[in-house]
Amino acid sequence: MPTPPYRQIADELRRQILSGELGAGEKVPSENALALQHGVAPETARAALGVLAAEGLTEARRGSGTRVRDFKPILRRGTKRLAQSGWGEGRSIWEADLDGRPLTTDRVTVEELPCPAHIARALDLEADAPVWVRDRRYLVEDQPVMLATSYLPAVIVAGSPITEPDTGPGGTYARLADLGHKPVHFREVARARMPLPDEAEALALGKGTPVVLIVRYAYAAGGLPVEVNEMTLDASRYLMEWEFPA
Amino acid sequence: MPTPPYRQIADELRRQILSGELGAGEKVPSENALALQHGVAPETARAALGVLAAEGLTEARRGSGTRVRDFKPILRRGTKRLAQSGWGEGRSIWEADLDGRPLTTDRVTVEELPCPAHIARALDLEADAPVWVRDRRYLVEDQPVMLATSYLPAVIVAGSPITEPDTGPGGTYARLADLGHKPVHFREVARARMPLPDEAEALALGKGTPVVLIVRYAYAAGGLPVEVNEMTLDASRYLMEWEFPA
Repeated sequence: MPTPPYRQIADELRRQILSGELGAGEKVPSENALALQHGVAPETARAALGVLAAEGLTEARRGSGTRVRDFKPILRRGTKRLAQSGWGEGRSIWEADLDGRPLTTDRVTVEELPCPAHIARALDLEADAPVWVRDRRYLVEDQPVMLATSYLPAVIVAGSPITEPDTGPGGTYARLADLGHKPVHFREVARARMPLPDEAEALALGKGTPVVLIVRYAYAAGGLPVEVNEMTLDASRYLMEWEFPA
Repeated sequence: MPTPPYRQIADELRRQILSGELGAGEKVPSENALALQHGVAPETARAALGVLAAEGLTEARRGSGTRVRDFKPILRRGTKRLAQSGWGEGRSIWEADLDGRPLTTDRVTVEELPCPAHIARALDLEADAPVWVRDRRYLVEDQPVMLATSYLPAVIVAGSPITEPDTGPGGTYARLADLGHKPVHFREVARARMPLPDEAEALALGKGTPVVLIVRYAYAAGGLPVEVNEMTLDASRYLMEWEFPA
């Protein structure tokens, strides 16, 4: 079976992108330009561009057409960022990731709720036991990059700054230490999938952009679970690093 | 702006899938059935089904129509699987992941090549220095799940079983230990994106399925890099876990 024309055009553009001939951030030829160049209908050129968008090789930007995706990731140092030497000294666990780029949060809610069943299992709580739920969106240079929802047992954190929007220097982990439940061990479980519409909207994701879901479990001495954090990351913004001994 | 009919139908089907009303592995109504049920053209029903496929909520299976995606992941224990207590005792690092499911490899090539520039930097080698390149595809229950390409300095591994298709009990890491270069530290760096056509073909990926790329760096005592392994995982088959102290 011969390769249909839209596939041939997509193959040629992909080759140019992967070889660097069309560099990161550069403009991709428009539908009309491609149609003229290859002597095909605009619909055929549009289908070719659709293939590249679905593969995540290009991204549409408001007012500036379609460009080759520029992967300038945030390096998320899974191990280093959670080292006690950071939050124990009152620093944000984000300092390991940002290289000085400004970080903000919005859509912050902090409330006491009955614990959802799957979280209750992880926190060793009765179903519906009260938990404090911290919900927020993280932005780097004003672009949303991650959604996060943390669950903490009310029996541990009630009345502490963990129930306030601002948890203070060193954040939640430093406050858990103040409360006598210092995290000593972390477990992170990750997967990737395509976003649901709510997630695509909240993270302003373009076509062909998956999300990475990371669930973090924090444990205090004796294996006591003290936090579950469900994170949803824009996969096009993150490199994630973990280090460990053999 | 009113929601177009294909979006309305997609929204309704998504609600049914996320609520469990349409369970994992269950058949999704056909194009014709949806068209009849909603009084729309078959093209409209097709567009609705296309939305769900692109979101990865459904998957087409040869000969059995379209079904709700069934996420039965392999748990990839990033930390435990690389513990020396496993490969040091001659076990495969895969034993931590599989719960007894049969693992095979195919498309195996092992050859000496000049080191690619980005790998040479990571291995502290001159560009084009000889490396042994181990390339293979992993299958679980005969389904491809991962592609992997390992690079090892020829100056360390030449003449050893690491240059053979079968590296023997405990695999590459046990052999590196035999050679006096036991890995003591690992670093894994991960990202997710949509697959390129070659990757989609090699992993038999359906629509709406991203890949996870993991690059592992293995270090011997003194920080000597002894291996770089570039892995490409079918994101719909994996949950990935890392554990570490605070």
